[in-house]
Formats: sequence, C-alpha cells, structure tokens
Amino acid sequence: MIYVSLAISLSAIFFALFLSKQIKKYSFGSAQIKSISEYIQEGAKAFLNREFKTLIIVLGILALILGVFIRPAEAFTFLAGAFVSALAGYLGMKVATQANGRCANAAISSFSAAFKIAYKAGSVMGLLVVGFGLFGLLTVWLIFEDPQLLIGYAFGSSLVALFLRVGGGIYTKSADVGADLVGKVEKGIPEDDPRNPAVIADAVGDNVGDIAGMGSDLFESYVSAIVAAAVLGVPLFGEKGLFLPILLAAAGILSSLIGNFFVVVKEKKGDSFQNQTKSVRKAMKKGIIAANILMVIASWFIVKEFGEIGMFWALLTGLLVGILIGEVTKYYTSDGYKPVLGIAKASQSGMSINIIEGLSQGMISTVVPALAVGIAMIVAFEFANLFGIALAGVGILAVLGINLSSDSYGPIVDNAAGIAEMTGLPPEVRQRTDALDSVGNTTAATGKGFAIGSAALTALAWIATFFETANIESADITDPRVIGGFMTGAALSFLFCALLMKAVSKGSFSIVEEVRRQFAEIKGLMEGKAKPDYSRVVDLTTKRSLKEMILPGILVIAVPILTGILLGMEGLGGLLMGGLVCGFLLAVMMSNSGGAWDNAKKYIESGNFGGKGSDAHKAAVVGDTVGDPMKDTAGPSLNILIKLIGKVAVIFVPLFVLFA
Amino acid sequence: MIYVSLAISLSAIFFALFLSKQIKKYSFGSAQIKSISEYIQEGAKAFLNREFKTLIIVLGILALILGVFIRPAEAFTFLAGAFVSALAGYLGMKVATQANGRCANAAISSFSAAFKIAYKAGSVMGLLVVGFGLFGLLTVWLIFEDPQLLIGYAFGSSLVALFLRVGGGIYTKSADVGADLVGKVEKGIPEDDPRNPAVIADAVGDNVGDIAGMGSDLFESYVSAIVAAAVLGVPLFGEKGLFLPILLAAAGILSSLIGNFFVVVKEKKGDSFQNQTKSVRKAMKKGIIAANILMVIASWFIVKEFGEIGMFWALLTGLLVGILIGEVTKYYTSDGYKPVLGIAKASQSGMSINIIEGLSQGMISTVVPALAVGIAMIVAFEFANLFGIALAGVGILAVLGINLSSDSYGPIVDNAAGIAEMTGLPPEVRQRTDALDSVGNTTAATGKGFAIGSAALTALAWIATFFETANIESADITDPRVIGGFMTGAALSFLFCALLMKAVSKGSFSIVEEVRRQFAEIKGLMEGKAKPDYSRVVDLTTKRSLKEMILPGILVIAVPILTGILLGMEGLGGLLMGGLVCGFLLAVMMSNSGGAWDNAKKYIESGNFGGKGSDAHKAAVVGDTVGDPMKDTAGPSLNILIKLIGKVAVIFVPLFVLFA
Repeated sequence: MIYVSLAISLSAIFFALFLSKQIKKYSFGSAQIKSISEYIQEGAKAFLNREFKTLIIVLGILALILGVFIRPAEAFTFLAGAFVSALAGYLGMKVATQANGRCANAAISSFSAAFKIAYKAGSVMGLLVVGFGLFGLLTVWLIFEDPQLLIGYAFGSSLVALFLRVGGGIYTKSADVGADLVGKVEKGIPEDDPRNPAVIADAVGDNVGDIAGMGSDLFESYVSAIVAAAVLGVPLFGEKGLFLPILLAAAGILSSLIGNFFVVVKEKKGDSFQNQTKSVRKAMKKGIIAANILMVIASWFIVKEFGEIGMFWALLTGLLVGILIGEVTKYYTSDGYKPVLGIAKASQSGMSINIIEGLSQGMISTVVPALAVGIAMIVAFEFANLFGIALAGVGILAVLGINLSSDSYGPIVDNAAGIAEMTGLPPEVRQRTDALDSVGNTTAATGKGFAIGSAALTALAWIATFFETANIESADITDPRVIGGFMTGAALSFLFCALLMKAVSKGSFSIVEEVRRQFAEIKGLMEGKAKPDYSRVVDLTTKRSLKEMILPGILVIAVPILTGILLGMEGLGGLLMGGLVCGFLLAVMMSNSGGAWDNAKKYIESGNFGGKGSDAHKAAVVGDTVGDPMKDTAGPSLNILIKLIGKVAVIFVPLFVLFA
Repeated sequence: MIYVSLAISLSAIFFALFLSKQIKKYSFGSAQIKSISEYIQEGAKAFLNREFKTLIIVLGILALILGVFIRPAEAFTFLAGAFVSALAGYLGMKVATQANGRCANAAISSFSAAFKIAYKAGSVMGLLVVGFGLFGLLTVWLIFEDPQLLIGYAFGSSLVALFLRVGGGIYTKSADVGADLVGKVEKGIPEDDPRNPAVIADAVGDNVGDIAGMGSDLFESYVSAIVAAAVLGVPLFGEKGLFLPILLAAAGILSSLIGNFFVVVKEKKGDSFQNQTKSVRKAMKKGIIAANILMVIASWFIVKEFGEIGMFWALLTGLLVGILIGEVTKYYTSDGYKPVLGIAKASQSGMSINIIEGLSQGMISTVVPALAVGIAMIVAFEFANLFGIALAGVGILAVLGINLSSDSYGPIVDNAAGIAEMTGLPPEVRQRTDALDSVGNTTAATGKGFAIGSAALTALAWIATFFETANIESADITDPRVIGGFMTGAALSFLFCALLMKAVSKGSFSIVEEVRRQFAEIKGLMEGKAKPDYSRVVDLTTKRSLKEMILPGILVIAVPILTGILLGMEGLGGLLMGGLVCGFLLAVMMSNSGGAWDNAKKYIESGNFGGKGSDAHKAAVVGDTVGDPMKDTAGPSLNILIKLIGKVAVIFVPLFVLFA
C-alpha cells in the first residue's frame, strides 16, 4: 500500500517536472517580454532567498529546542517537512515566473495556447504540492514508522507556510498599495506602467503571495490533515489508521492528474471576451468536477476495503464543505450577485457608506461557512468519531492537486496581462490576456475561500489531536482557565489580524518614499528615457515584509506556549478553540469584504453608476484599497494562525506536562 | 436586611425625584430655547411611546409563552422587570430632556450653574436605574421568595434593553448620519443649524440612544448581576446567598449617593476652556473615587459579616476590571495618546489608510479587555467558585449609581451645546457649553467601555447560571455539538453586528430623502424664513429604527432557542460562549475604532495636520462617519446580544429538557 502511494506521489512530481520542461520550450517572443519576465523571476527568487536565510535560522533554533526537549528524531522530521515544503514552493514559483512572459507572447497568436501555458504552470504548483507533500510524509514514515514523528513533519511545513504566506502577504500588498499610491494617485500613470519603479515589485508580489504563499499554506493543510488522521487513526485501527488517509490522498492525486486532462479550451477565431472567459471557466470546471467524481468513487472503494463505511460519509462531508464554501465565496465576491452590486450601489452615497456596506457584507458572509464547518463537525463525528473530523479535513483537500492548479493559474495570467500592458501588445492580444486574467480573479476568490475552509477543518483535526495527545479527559467551557484561554485565543486572532493590516500600511509607506525618491532623482524617468531601479524596490519590500512579520510570527508561537504553561492544557485547549473560531470568522470576513470591494470597483469601472472617474468610482477605489491588505494579507495569514497554534500545542505537550 | 435595602433603594428613587423637582425650577430664559427643548422632549417621548407600543405586544406574547410553558409566576415577574426598567428609562430621559435647555440658559450667566443642572439631571438617571432596579427586585423577592423567579424579572429588563438600546442605537445614528449627509455635505450649513429638518431628530437621538438606551442596558446588567449571584448563591449558602449581593448593591447605592456630593465645580470668572474642562473632570473624578472607596470599605464589612473573605476579593476583581477597561478605552480613544494620534497622522495618507489604521487600532484595543476579563474570571473563581464570577459582576456594577450619572451627563450637555448653537448664544456662553460637552465626550467613551465590560462579566455570570440551571455535568470543547454551538454563536455576533451597521445606512438614506424633500418643497427654508417639519423626520426615524430592529431582535431570541432544541444544552452552552467571546471583542473593537476616528477628526480640526478643510481632515471625516454606526449602534447593541442569549438559555431550560 505504502509503496503504491509512494509511486503515485512520485508520478505527480515527475509529471510536474515534465510539464515544466514543456513550458520552457515556448518562446518569449521579444527581448522586451523576456527581460520583464526575468526581472520578475529575479525579484521572486531574491524574495525567497532572503526569506529562506531567515527561515533557516528560525528552523535551526526550533529544531534544537525540539531535539533537546522533545526528541531528536522529531527535530529531523521537522526539518524534513520544512525542506520538502520549501522545495515545492521554490520550484512551483520558479515555473510560474517562467511561464508568465511566455503566456503573454503566446497570446499574440492564440488564446488557447496562452491558456495552455498558464494552466500547465499552475498545474506544476498543484502537483508539486501534493506530490512532495505525500512523498515526504511516506518517506518519514518508512524511516521511523511512528505516527508521532509525523507531527514534526507537519510542524516543519507550518513554519515554511508562516514565512511564505505571512511574509508573502505583507510583501504583495505593500508593493501593490505602494505602487498605486505614487503611480496612479500622485503621478497619474496607469497601472503596470514600466516607468513606475514599483511595478516589478508588484508583479513579484503576485507570485510570492498568491503562488508561493498560497501553495505553502495548502501544503501545510494537506500534510496536516493526513497527519492528524494518522495520529488519531493508528491508536484506534493500527496500521489501517494510517493506510486509509494515505490511500485516500493517493487516490486524490490520481484523480487530480486525470482531471487535468479534461481541462481543454477550444478556440474560435475572433471570439468575444465573454465567450473566451466562458470557455476557460467551463474547461476548468470540467476538470474539477471530473476529479471530484473520480475521487468520490475511489474513496468509496478504499473505505469499503480498509475502513468502515461511516468514514466515507465523514470524508464526503469535508469534500462538500469545501465546495460549499467556495460557492459562498463566489456569491459574496462576484459581481453577478447582490452583495457586490449592493456595495457598488452604496458607493454612490460616498466613501463611508461604501466602507460600512463592505464591512457588513463581509461579516454576513461568515454565517454560512461557520455553520457549514459546525455541521460538518457534527456529521463527521457522528459517522466516525474524532477520526471522522480528521477525515473531513482529508476530504476537503482530497483533490487539492487540481484545485491548486486553478488557484495558481490566477497570478500567472495576472502577470501575463501586466506584461502585455507593459510591453504595449496590441488590443486583441490584451483582450485575450484580460479574459484569462478575469477568470483568474474568480478562481483566486474561490481558492481563498477554499483555503480558509480547509484551514478550519485541519485546525479542528489538530485540536482533536491535541486533546488525544495531551490526554485531557475534558475541558469544560465553564472552567475559568478554559474561559481565560478562549479570551486569549480570540484576542490573539484580533491582534494578529490588526498587526498584519498595519504592516501593509507601514510597508507601503516606505515604498512610496523610495518610488518618490527615484522619480525625483532619476532624470528622464517620467519621460520614459531612463530606467527605474526596480531591484531596489524589490529588495526594500522584501526587507520590510520580513521585518514586519517578526512580531506576529513570535506571537503565534509564543502565546500558545505561554498559555499552556500558565493556564495548563485546559486553558490551552480554550485558546485553540477561541483562536480557531474568531480567526476563522475574521479570515472569512477579511477575505470576502476585500474581494467584494475589489469587484464592486471593477463593476463601476465597467460603466455602471457613472463609470470610471465618477464619485461612485472614487468611493469604490477607497473601499478597494482598504480591502487589499484585508483580503491578501490579514485574511490568508489567519489561516496560518489557526493551524499553527494547534500544532505548537501538540508539539509542546511534553513541556506543559512539566509545568502541570 | 431586606427592608434596610428596600429603604435604601427607595431613598435613591426619592432623591432622584427631588433632584428632578429642583431642575424644573430653573428657567429656560428665552422662548426660543424653551421651544427647541420642547421639540426634543416631544420627539423623545414620541420615540418611547412608539417603542413601548411594539414592546407591549412582544412582552405580551413572551409573557404568554412563559406563563403557559414555564410558570405563570415567571410571566408576572417578567412583566414586572420590564415595567420597572421601562419606567426608569422613561423618567430618566424625561428629566434629561427637560434639563438640556435649562442648562444652556444657565450657561449664559454661570459655568458652574450650567454644570450643576446637567450633572443633577444625569444623577436622576443614575439613581433611578439603581433605585428602581433594586426596589423591583426586592419586591419580587418579598412576594415569591424564590430566586428562580428573579430570572424572569431580569429577563423582563433585557427585553426593554433590547428595544431601547438597539432601537435607540439605530435611531441615533440614522438621524446623525442623515442630518450630516444633507446638511453639512450637500447644503453646506453647519451642524445643529435649525434650518436642517433633521436637527431635532439628531438631538432626540442623543437622548434615546445614550440616555434611555445606555440606562436600560446598564439597568439590565445591574439587575442581572444581582440575580445571577442570588440564583447561584441561594443553593449554596441559603438566604445569605441572596442577602450578600443585595446588601452589596444597597451599599453601592449609598456610596453613590454620598459620592454625588463630592461632585462640585468651583467657578472662576473668565476661566479658560482648558481650566473649565479640567475642573469638571476633577469634580467628577473626585465623586467616583469617593464612591469607590466607600464601596470597598463597606463591602469588606458586609462580606466579613455575611460571607467568606474570598468573596470580597472576587467582588474587588470585578470593580478593578471595570476601572481598567474604562482606562483602556480612554487610552485608545482620547487624543492625548498614541492610537488617536496615529490615526490622525495616517489621515494624511488618505482615506484608505485612515480606515485601515482605525480598524487595526480597534482590533488591538481588544487585547487588554479580553485578558482582563479572562484573568478576572480565573481570580474570582479561585476565590469563590462560580459564585465568585457572579460577584465580580456585582463588583463592576457596584457604584453604577454614580458611574451612570457621569454617562448620562454627556448627552445632556451635548444637547445643551447644540441648543446654544441653534439659538445663537454669544461666544463666551458657547465656550462654556462646549467645555461641558468636551468632558461629556470623554465620560461617554469610558462609559461605553464600562458598559461593555460589565455586560461581559454579567454574561459570564449568566452562562454559569445556565450551567447550574440546566444541570449539565460538563460541556467539553471537543464535543462536536459544543463546537457547532461555538461557530453558531460567533457567527450570530458577526451577523447581528453587520445587520445593525446596515440598518444605519438604510435608516439614514430614508432621512436624507425626507430632508431633501423638505428643502425642495418648503419654500424659504434655506433662507431661514420658513420652519422645517421637524416632527416628520422624528417620526420617520422612529419608524425606521423599529423596523430595522425586527430581524436582529428575532435572531437574538430565536437562535439560542433553536440551538438548544437542535444541539442540546451542550451545544447551547457552546453558543453562549462563542457569542460572548466574539460579541465582546467585536463590541470593544467597534466602540474603540469609532471613538478613535471621532477624536482623530477633532484633533485635526483643532488645527493639526492641516486643520479643517485639509485633505487629512477629509480623510478623517470619512473615518468618523464609518465609526458612527460602529460605536453608537453596533457596539452597544452587542452588549445586549451577549447578555440576552444567556438569559434566553436560562429561561427556556424546561423547553430544552423536553427535546433532550
């Protein structure tokens, strides 16, 4: 069983490498496209290199602590998890940054060819995450054959996710807001104008935030769900408790691989923008539906063979919750529906009403996801106890391979559209890249919802794991330590969220200053005669984002440890639950408010309520800018928070025992 | 014991009536002041009358349900609680609206005389709330001698609080935002200009929101804290379990009464604005400190006589938490400190950054209150078990009599300053009323923090009561029903908060339309030759606010009942805790973000960062308007949510038993 799964995980990796080889064969077309693409590649690489340098130090310290206080082998698996996750993120992002320029060039001749490149590059990320995730996990298992040591492996991936998701989130929005504040507002030059020194940093940001960041976030969720299931399952069912989640994951990889072949866009000459976006949407949907159907069938047989049929229903619950949360996200953030239209309409009454409406809609949008997760817990538990909760987590992430492919596709075509703009490609080409980008925006929104939902289910599985590991009989909600823990956890999620929003303000300030400086000091820049110093902005943004993540990063690790020491395991359990519930709802709110503001602005820009330049548009721009750090920094970072606190709790149980 | 307490509660009522007689003796001075004051009085009365009409129907239905399904006597005490609370609110607000014009007129000749009128009127509200609260409670006890029936009494006061706090909150901000949107923005006429048809509705709003609403909110907290202590105490200590909280409450009333005499402002001729505000602040502080010291001494002796000394520490914990949360609120919302200065500074970078900064600061401001309440729980429980938690609630509200006096003083002097503006009183008089008003803004801010803190402690005491009443052994946080309950409770608080913010947008829209209509149709209005139809705006606002509170009102009662039926008592326990934690943090955030934006704007208006009319000021105005519904509608209404769900849970335990 293990070796079959190992082979499947390897096949995903090899197929990803094969795809990346294919992508490299396409041409950049012009030297201009190539050079811009290379700027982005270098910027992204520079970001990762600097992140990794700091990460290695943090990993070293934590490995030392784990090795000395917990178990040497745990330190090893911890480092293994971090290494594999970082490798997947690094390779996936490399391919994505290689694909953007090629995609823009391909769009000159063919819409479908451009789509193919972008989607293939997205698939590379998707397949590398699930392939490496499962491969590493199995390797660690084969070496140690101890489910407890898998916890270290998952913890390692968490640390990488913390750096890439949080750091990347701060980076991407600092660059975006900073570029807009000087470029669009002060200088009156369009978005993605090559004269803007922050334009490359902005493009790099899409990659580090939405590809490396998103990838590492879901890598962590994926690995954590399987590990939680194994840790809960092995004591109950022996080796079968491990086989089941692993086989399900392997089946998910196969389903994703097959599903990918259903994603084909047919091209008609002179097709309209609407038809182009429609065909792309349809193609991707087909692939995801195929993969899901295959997965459901496969898991039915796997569960029948290796488990009890209740487990199938637990798994299915998770899978359905993922789809539901994705649809809810679409409803609350797409311009075809009431919430976004309401915000656009409210923009006519000015900025304040736009903000109030956006915040309210974001808060309202938490209701269905919260109830869905709550109900899923009850159903999954009913069918298969605590193990069922972990299986629901496995279920939501089962076909991550293909889900993440569409998510990663988004930033690639976003970059491609930017490059088409920067290099002044003709309008019919721009229409093509814009059509690709428009679909990317939708997949990004549902992807975000999916990421949050899976983080919540995974986090719940880890809370269950914590209670098993800590051997707590019960943590009563009227126990004052539990209440103290709740309050602390809830406050932690509010504080963490606020610090990240502030980080973006601060980061964008320093970029504004640097961009202003370049416009002032580099002669001929505004006239397009001189080149800006892109790399300085890239470098500055990288430094800022690393600096700004120190405090939130420390909090998310230190607060659970301190709570465990001061309030005991029960108090820590309260913290986990308070942090999860508040963090989850805040994440949904942040993400959906931001997405809705964004699309309300776009809706007005497409000619409604006065169109571009109207008062309604000005109000919508304010909302959009407020939403930026909410949806792309604070929201996604909260995913990391809710997962990481659970992991810290589980890892440090031996420490808390000493103080109990 | 009971009779001594009864006498003390009666003395508070009589002293309040004596004060209100005194106030009536002061003159309005001019017919103009009198007529404006009467408009406000009538508007406020009209609001209450309409609210009460709807309230009576709701009370009738609920009393029927209670009488049939629970116990006839419970229906009676329920109605008694509602009646007493409504009476206190009605009388207190009547006196406040009678005092505003008299205060403005007194300011013509003397600063200290103006202060005296306003503070006396504020004291009427403060003393009526504690006097009626305790008197009603004791009467109910003397009739039935059953602590269980006190629960109905507390529930009755909750219903009134729901209507006055939530309905009043929607009213006050709909009127405020609506008046500003047309008056200041469209027509360019100053705030409080008598030509604006919404100006009276705006003044009425201050009274119904911040006097009747705040009063009924704290009436509920006060009564609930005592009842929770009695319900938890009697089974443990017999009658002493009732005597102790009642005697403590009586001691608090006496302390407040005595403290009031320390509030004396000495006047120097030609005193500067700063010195005037300083002397008022000092006077009020003196009174509150005196009352607190007396209370601590008295409670030491009472506890020594009737309880165990641990109970004293539990009580003291609550008292200190109240003071701490008040101070934290001041820090986060006053312009002397970093948060507000940071928001003012951020306003220079535009509206979006102002919003992000304000939201972040609000979120950060939740940390200390959350930890304080958490720690208080642990300490109070340590010293006196669940009874200690209830005693902490009694402690925070012990000297409510004097605390609420300063809270209610705020809207009165706000109205007085408005009347001074409307009637064109000379600058030195306006300086006096502005100085009074400026202090009122601070007391309003700390008062809001205090109200939230006391709501949280009271709510916790009721959760404890629920667990006692429901006889639940344990509600484990890993029980999926509990998790489902958490999620539901958290989502409920987000939804409730969002609905109230939206209610204000909607309400203000309809006012904008009506005001526009009047400006268009009433000839000579803009020129000051014709009078606007104030009462139509007042009436419209009242109708809107009642309509908009239907859905949130139903939710807050129906969701706990449904949860109790579907998820059982454990699930309901989870809902209570999730709703409390999320609701409490949201309330603090809403309230402090709003307060900070308000004062950041004022700070800029006083000449900093470019002063009035600068870009920074424009940005700050947007933040202020966003903050209005947050701090005055959503935030305070969340107090009601967190307390009411607990009460519904306790009341309907017999129903849930049927479905268990």
